[in-house]
Amino acid sequence: MTLLVVGSVAFDSVSGPRGSVERMLGGSATYFSIAASYFTSVQVVGVVGEDFEDHHHNVFLKLGICTQGLERVPGKTFFWAGEYSHNMNERQTLDTQLNVFATFEPKLPLHYRQTPYLFLGNIDPELQLIVASQMESPALIAGDTMNFWIEGKREHLERTLRKIHVLIINDSEARQLSGEYNLLKAGRAIQAMGPKTVVIKRGDNGATMLQESEIFSVPALPIEEVFDPTGAGDSFAGGFMGYLASCGTKGDGTDKNAFRRAVIYGSVMGSFAVEEFGVDRLLHLSREKIDTRFQDFQALTRFE
Amino acid sequence: MTLLVVGSVAFDSVSGPRGSVERMLGGSATYFSIAASYFTSVQVVGVVGEDFEDHHHNVFLKLGICTQGLERVPGKTFFWAGEYSHNMNERQTLDTQLNVFATFEPKLPLHYRQTPYLFLGNIDPELQLIVASQMESPALIAGDTMNFWIEGKREHLERTLRKIHVLIINDSEARQLSGEYNLLKAGRAIQAMGPKTVVIKRGDNGATMLQESEIFSVPALPIEEVFDPTGAGDSFAGGFMGYLASCGTKGDGTDKNAFRRAVIYGSVMGSFAVEEFGVDRLLHLSREKIDTRFQDFQALTRFE
Repeated sequence: MTLLVVGSVAFDSVSGPRGSVERMLGGSATYFSIAASYFTSVQVVGVVGEDFEDHHHNVFLKLGICTQGLERVPGKTFFWAGEYSHNMNERQTLDTQLNVFATFEPKLPLHYRQTPYLFLGNIDPELQLIVASQMESPALIAGDTMNFWIEGKREHLERTLRKIHVLIINDSEARQLSGEYNLLKAGRAIQAMGPKTVVIKRGDNGATMLQESEIFSVPALPIEEVFDPTGAGDSFAGGFMGYLASCGTKGDGTDKNAFRRAVIYGSVMGSFAVEEFGVDRLLHLSREKIDTRFQDFQALTRFE
Repeated sequence: MTLLVVGSVAFDSVSGPRGSVERMLGGSATYFSIAASYFTSVQVVGVVGEDFEDHHHNVFLKLGICTQGLERVPGKTFFWAGEYSHNMNERQTLDTQLNVFATFEPKLPLHYRQTPYLFLGNIDPELQLIVASQMESPALIAGDTMNFWIEGKREHLERTLRKIHVLIINDSEARQLSGEYNLLKAGRAIQAMGPKTVVIKRGDNGATMLQESEIFSVPALPIEEVFDPTGAGDSFAGGFMGYLASCGTKGDGTDKNAFRRAVIYGSVMGSFAVEEFGVDRLLHLSREKIDTRFQDFQALTRFE
């Protein structure tokens, strides 16, 4: 079933121990929709500027991603620059230019409102709420957020949390949102805010999912050469949501094994994302390669 | 089959967010042998001072641990004091008094030399090597080490590494020993130093085992209330080795599933250890409780 994502489309300049790349295609909606496109049909809602060229647009079109909701307006595309530390375990933001993203107001083409699967990328929770409210019969709504909104737009964020089935955030955001350091307590506290399912991304320590009283945890696939961790979390969310949409899994979380498999597919897409700069590795995948790596996760974790 | 451990027996004073306890029974050989005693018969080689009283000794005897190799000499028992940070994620050593441990020379009762399973706790690698060399027909030798020996006794440590089948260390030690930050590279580099199997303990991020070209990873069991992380790593090693000794598993690592199950039993014993101060939680277990928690790890990690 079709999956709609709203979020940022950007240009990123990234440098780190494996080299540097200038102004490559990035943004949460970009990583998400590319990762999800291997599982299901994807619609993207976002905004780009006049510097967004046909060859950028073609990246989406080639993967069959519907860009009817990707608005092109006067000005420049959102730009981010960052640098990774020697061990890839720390990241410093060097530059952020919101540009056209600063006044972004997601506009849903009318037929998008019937899309059953929705992912609210990391944007202003006020806008997340507007988008969520426009959906006519959502089967599953998931969302992401970040420290900026947790600090600055807490009330709006709490309203959004009451509208979504699944929150997918990283460990430091889970701690900040809940005020709990212990991730089990943090997850439980967030569940009490609304989302029945909380997925906590833990970088190279894997991911943990809370569903009602159940917990599921998966380690990360050990990767010898990490080139660029940018977008790994959005790729995770894309694999997670893409898989659930492809199965038609309901947001109520009753099909627990589908959600567990979704965490693995999320981890698979995150593990691919870091193997090359930007979206490069994600562009040359197949469902077969993805399923082979799914089996790698089984081999990594299975004991009898 | 019988399992011999050589290591420290100590008194620990621990303080942290959940309270503080003075001079409780601790030390690597203590945690290890108590954890292992639920799986197999255990012999302990260590040294204590005159302040080591009958009620301390009885802790071992009650669990059927053979203390014939636990020497009592004039002076005081090894003493360590430490403090855990608010979130339990950092530890500061407040005091270390080696006392009788400073001149410890492990003396193996003659019949101990035929014991098939040996764990070399974190002591001077010169002493580890002497003990390992005395074993007549070892089925499996595992060892631990720490930053102090990696820095100060590198050559001796490398000689010990060539004598053991399994090294069980934590992530920071693996990085220091190998000079590699990436844990996969670190593990591979350590395998090249001798031990075919490398188990990397990662605290509340679980554990990863490398065996030849295979990797096995398990997340930690999320625990809401951690009381005292002291000894969790030694308890892990005790569960790991105790299980392998109980199965008669060979050190060559051919029975891969037995080693995977051993990592889970190690994780189980580590998870129990942190739930109360010192060895308190470990004293009141049963194989049934242990196997129930083994099943918790299956529920935590299983996907179909």
